[in-house]
Amino acid sequence: MENTESRLYFASDYMEGAHPAIMKKLMETNLEKTVGYGQDPYTEGAKEKIRKACNAPEAEVFLLVGGTQTNATVIDALLKSYQGVVAADTGHIATHESGAIEFGGHKVLTVPQKDGKISAQQIEKLVKDFYDDANYEHMVMPGMVYISQPTEYGTLYSREELAALSKVCRENHLPLYVDGARLAYALASPENDVTLTDLAELSDVFYIGGTKCGALFGEAVVIPQKGRIPHFFTIIKQHGALLAKGRIAGIQFGELFTDGLYLRIGKPAMEAAEQIKDALKKYGYQLSLDTPTNQIFCIVSNEVMKKIAQDVEFGFWEKYDETHSVIRFATSWATTMEDTQKLIQILEKNK
Amino acid sequence: MENTESRLYFASDYMEGAHPAIMKKLMETNLEKTVGYGQDPYTEGAKEKIRKACNAPEAEVFLLVGGTQTNATVIDALLKSYQGVVAADTGHIATHESGAIEFGGHKVLTVPQKDGKISAQQIEKLVKDFYDDANYEHMVMPGMVYISQPTEYGTLYSREELAALSKVCRENHLPLYVDGARLAYALASPENDVTLTDLAELSDVFYIGGTKCGALFGEAVVIPQKGRIPHFFTIIKQHGALLAKGRIAGIQFGELFTDGLYLRIGKPAMEAAEQIKDALKKYGYQLSLDTPTNQIFCIVSNEVMKKIAQDVEFGFWEKYDETHSVIRFATSWATTMEDTQKLIQILEKNK
Amino acid sequence: MENTESRLYFASDYMEGAHPAIMKKLMETNLEKTVGYGQDPYTEGAKEKIRKACNAPEAEVFLLVGGTQTNATVIDALLKSYQGVVAADTGHIATHESGAIEFGGHKVLTVPQKDGKISAQQIEKLVKDFYDDANYEHMVMPGMVYISQPTEYGTLYSREELAALSKVCRENHLPLYVDGARLAYALASPENDVTLTDLAELSDVFYIGGTKCGALFGEAVVIPQKGRIPHFFTIIKQHGALLAKGRIAGIQFGELFTDGLYLRIGKPAMEAAEQIKDALKKYGYQLSLDTPTNQIFCIVSNEVMKKIAQDVEFGFWEKYDETHSVIRFATSWATTMEDTQKLIQILEKNK
Amino acid sequence: MENTESRLYFASDYMEGAHPAIMKKLMETNLEKTVGYGQDPYTEGAKEKIRKACNAPEAEVFLLVGGTQTNATVIDALLKSYQGVVAADTGHIATHESGAIEFGGHKVLTVPQKDGKISAQQIEKLVKDFYDDANYEHMVMPGMVYISQPTEYGTLYSREELAALSKVCRENHLPLYVDGARLAYALASPENDVTLTDLAELSDVFYIGGTKCGALFGEAVVIPQKGRIPHFFTIIKQHGALLAKGRIAGIQFGELFTDGLYLRIGKPAMEAAEQIKDALKKYGYQLSLDTPTNQIFCIVSNEVMKKIAQDVEFGFWEKYDETHSVIRFATSWATTMEDTQKLIQILEKNK
Repeated sequence: MENTESRLYFASDYMEGAHPAIMKKLMETNLEKTVGYGQDPYTEGAKEKIRKACNAPEAEVFLLVGGTQTNATVIDALLKSYQGVVAADTGHIATHESGAIEFGGHKVLTVPQKDGKISAQQIEKLVKDFYDDANYEHMVMPGMVYISQPTEYGTLYSREELAALSKVCRENHLPLYVDGARLAYALASPENDVTLTDLAELSDVFYIGGTKCGALFGEAVVIPQKGRIPHFFTIIKQHGALLAKGRIAGIQFGELFTDGLYLRIGKPAMEAAEQIKDALKKYGYQLSLDTPTNQIFCIVSNEVMKKIAQDVEFGFWEKYDETHSVIRFATSWATTMEDTQKLIQILEKNK
Repeated sequence: MENTESRLYFASDYMEGAHPAIMKKLMETNLEKTVGYGQDPYTEGAKEKIRKACNAPEAEVFLLVGGTQTNATVIDALLKSYQGVVAADTGHIATHESGAIEFGGHKVLTVPQKDGKISAQQIEKLVKDFYDDANYEHMVMPGMVYISQPTEYGTLYSREELAALSKVCRENHLPLYVDGARLAYALASPENDVTLTDLAELSDVFYIGGTKCGALFGEAVVIPQKGRIPHFFTIIKQHGALLAKGRIAGIQFGELFTDGLYLRIGKPAMEAAEQIKDALKKYGYQLSLDTPTNQIFCIVSNEVMKKIAQDVEFGFWEKYDETHSVIRFATSWATTMEDTQKLIQILEKNK
Repeated sequence: MENTESRLYFASDYMEGAHPAIMKKLMETNLEKTVGYGQDPYTEGAKEKIRKACNAPEAEVFLLVGGTQTNATVIDALLKSYQGVVAADTGHIATHESGAIEFGGHKVLTVPQKDGKISAQQIEKLVKDFYDDANYEHMVMPGMVYISQPTEYGTLYSREELAALSKVCRENHLPLYVDGARLAYALASPENDVTLTDLAELSDVFYIGGTKCGALFGEAVVIPQKGRIPHFFTIIKQHGALLAKGRIAGIQFGELFTDGLYLRIGKPAMEAAEQIKDALKKYGYQLSLDTPTNQIFCIVSNEVMKKIAQDVEFGFWEKYDETHSVIRFATSWATTMEDTQKLIQILEKNK
Repeated sequence: MENTESRLYFASDYMEGAHPAIMKKLMETNLEKTVGYGQDPYTEGAKEKIRKACNAPEAEVFLLVGGTQTNATVIDALLKSYQGVVAADTGHIATHESGAIEFGGHKVLTVPQKDGKISAQQIEKLVKDFYDDANYEHMVMPGMVYISQPTEYGTLYSREELAALSKVCRENHLPLYVDGARLAYALASPENDVTLTDLAELSDVFYIGGTKCGALFGEAVVIPQKGRIPHFFTIIKQHGALLAKGRIAGIQFGELFTDGLYLRIGKPAMEAAEQIKDALKKYGYQLSLDTPTNQIFCIVSNEVMKKIAQDVEFGFWEKYDETHSVIRFATSWATTMEDTQKLIQILEKNK
């Protein structure tokens, strides 16, 4: 747990506290008295701002605490007991949520990813194959589709891809749910063409990530069509996901959606990522995937990995072969130019 | 959602943000970088302080977000699939958690409360009756015991009562779990004789409430005997209860357990509650229960209730009869003498 | 496990195999080949006969194996994830199903029974109290009502009582589900005025018990309104309740509903029960409840209980006081006049 | 639902009733009175015979009703809440049980099959990869291994393969569970070298299939090591898998384990399968897999498939390509030489 001054941190995007504007507002309002459970004016205000940012005046918005919790709560709310959720085999719900979806009684029906993404064609085929199977009544029915924007690999769905997915989902009565844990980094990417308004139009439920995008914690679930999930408040409570001091989330999302902060907050991460990717290419490193957001995946020899690790915290992603590994550098809203330059120097040194 | 200056708030103990010391530390550390999921030095430090405060050097400590979440996670971790949790019929898990325990597959086996409490004798009888029943293998086996300190009625278990419960639980291999959502108010009560050390000795798991006791959020689960719950980290994750930025909880509990703050933080609530109770008695109000902590239950005519409601936010507890109601005033660590005096004047006016 | 000739068996109504007509048909059809999972002509025929007997031409009928299984499957199918099932505190699902309902994620919301029954007034009050509670969104919503006909105490709902329950349930959008594990004994009781047609009209789902009413096993779930439970076949499979050789249940229910056998099959049990009750009264025994079906509850001194136990298998129901117990004699479709007379002699001897 | 005399049935191995010896015994004992829930002498006797046949004098034996039910009950009993069950991607629990394992809260961790089987090496690698993963505490821990003997493809594990699996499972504290839905056909196969004694020695739990092997229904769970699953009776009840008239299963398994019937009962199926496979080869049909038990998989053009379907019921397995399909012929204990010859003639006709 080194915490020395000289060490560089590019291991993840949840290593700092919150954006200064959030901290300031939390301080200012600290001793005000408000009712609990998200009925307070700060939460109401945040919800209204989110509705506006999404161009979804009828949307219901709920503020939860963390990503796994949000995924489990939304998926349990959308599925019937005999249905499963379709996801990429690299989807967060399929891999790193300790079985939270199965804990709720549902199977994750995985399909192979490409660059972390799944396609409308895959969904269409999966549904067709399911109903073509003579034994389909003995199988888990696909009941909804889960995707992440950006994906777990840092890639992006284009508006066209998302629209195609949405179409096939709606034709097959499969709610489409978008996990936006890192949504700010999608919105800040020059390559992105999917807006909050698009998400509200094309998905049935999505969430706007706070934890990895500048908040202390918090994820804002947006249900564009009012009444789509009856009694969601109680479902949240049943999942242990209801915050007593709801306003602490309300204030944070209120700030994130003041003056378009959420649309800007990912920019420094993008700039740092661009520079790091340029340096990696320049110094002859091999990117395992050319990602347009704040996660950079790079194949290095185990020797080089060890050297870099002397100065930098990064994520070990997976073994590539006996002598190479895939490592991940993640930038964030709080990444400084100074740290980025230092990282680039270290990369140069170890090239 | 009145929020005007002149209105008084005695509806609950989670109406403010956090103790100033917590806010200060969150500000100071805001842009430091630390690893996630509670592996950071702040969380490690908080755990160590809690171990010391509990005189439990081997204890495992985990920081979760909220009470219902904590109850569901701990209870699921302690019970076998065929067991249920014994609780007072007024226990929070039996009433106001939207079925979170049943969502985890377990029955709450209720026994009648007295002043919000259950007794060793009741547990003994319940176990005896269970195994005496010819059909017990067709029934839900009692697998653990849940109590709250203070109880949902603001009452306290004495050390003697707790020791008796602990003894009968251990004799019957029933883990004893103590919900300490409002534990600071127990520890600050002049009538209390149960220390943190007692809790660590007499229970198998207990939690130290943060949300209602001065934190923005957070509950510290203490497992005095190391290894008592294998893989609890994964169980927490599976329940969606793992905080990515774990240090936000760590910093808060670190402050709460610096210089004995947690032992002091409930004092203002106690003083305010004493004065309010004295005033209620003086002005001829009827207390429905003489509670030693920060919740005051009072029987008033519906007419009087309406009058008080013009100036004060309080909790409607239950209908008493056709013309009377039970109402609750809750004080907190943040209750001021000024507000207390104002409330007393309103009580005098409406006596 | 005595099995000697001289011993008498009045412990329950599932001590024999099946009605001879069933065994004969199983033998005759044994080597025929049919498709599985209840798609065979015998099952189709049985379903059609049940529809006719219930005057419910649109009803969907499913044949399951046992009572607990049927209750869990139907209740899970009818409830939303955040709802519970209302039942008498003596209801089978609340007591002797090892937590099968909680295993499915749902709370049993108990109300006090009277003679094993609950009333329309109780349901009305429960619903009103629920929605009157300021915290109802933090509580388990009543989602359906469960009753047994006859009840676990052998008592009967009258048509009037059932109609009142049905009315209040429909007004409150609560499906009414009737557990008919011993339904043949209700239908054979002279005091009964509730027909199969009434059940189909007044309930949303009910089941016609086979296991305790002359079959080797089997319970026929009747859903009077077609489409009421979408994908129930898959829900049955998911609950492990789908019989591969479905026709074994189909043949049994086919026989039970040929020439009105199900309506007659309980008669011998009724006649035996009448004679036993008359004898008990004549010899000065105290009935704990005057039940109109095949279960007779009687308070005896522990001494007398021991003496009777030398010759007779009966059910120990519960401790009455320190020196007395409640015992149960159950008659069945297979109870002979000879055994009944022998029991009466033993009762006379020990009076 | 054709049921005409001339039609041939090779669609599955659960198309008839029960072996005549079973039917005879059910008839003879039909009106005897015994206690319920498997405490009767017939069930006790059957359990003792199974213990002897398995050379496992300490084994606990439980008689359940069907395969999916048995799998769900055993797997829920063996796993901790945070664990999953490892299975071939073609394993029955992974495909055709409508999510019964997920309903119990557990993930099925699939590994690629080869001829329907998985290997010790795969398990070893899976465990190593799991604990090598930096994020393993965020993932579903492998908690047990599930295999089928014979597999869903009709193939067999050799004693050597099973011993290797058992070894790696024990080294890694993973209970090994064997689904023996069609075990009689393994035991009757000339290629088989795995005995009941081997299963009792090498697995932690296995079940001896009745439904597909000559019984009306029923699966016998064998737990070689006494006390391995505490309170399994209650777990069975909780899963709705407890038969009230337990003796109906007891009598059936009693007959199946009298004079080695279970070891012989699959022979006619083997002989028929041999002849059909020989004919298929002789007439130039392409087997998709050369299976040593009672399931024969064959690739035919869709045209030929339609022709055969005019006279024979068989199983459609899967699409092979645009113009071909894989079909399955299943023989059973009840398959006659006459029907086998008729099938061969039809195969000749359509070659």
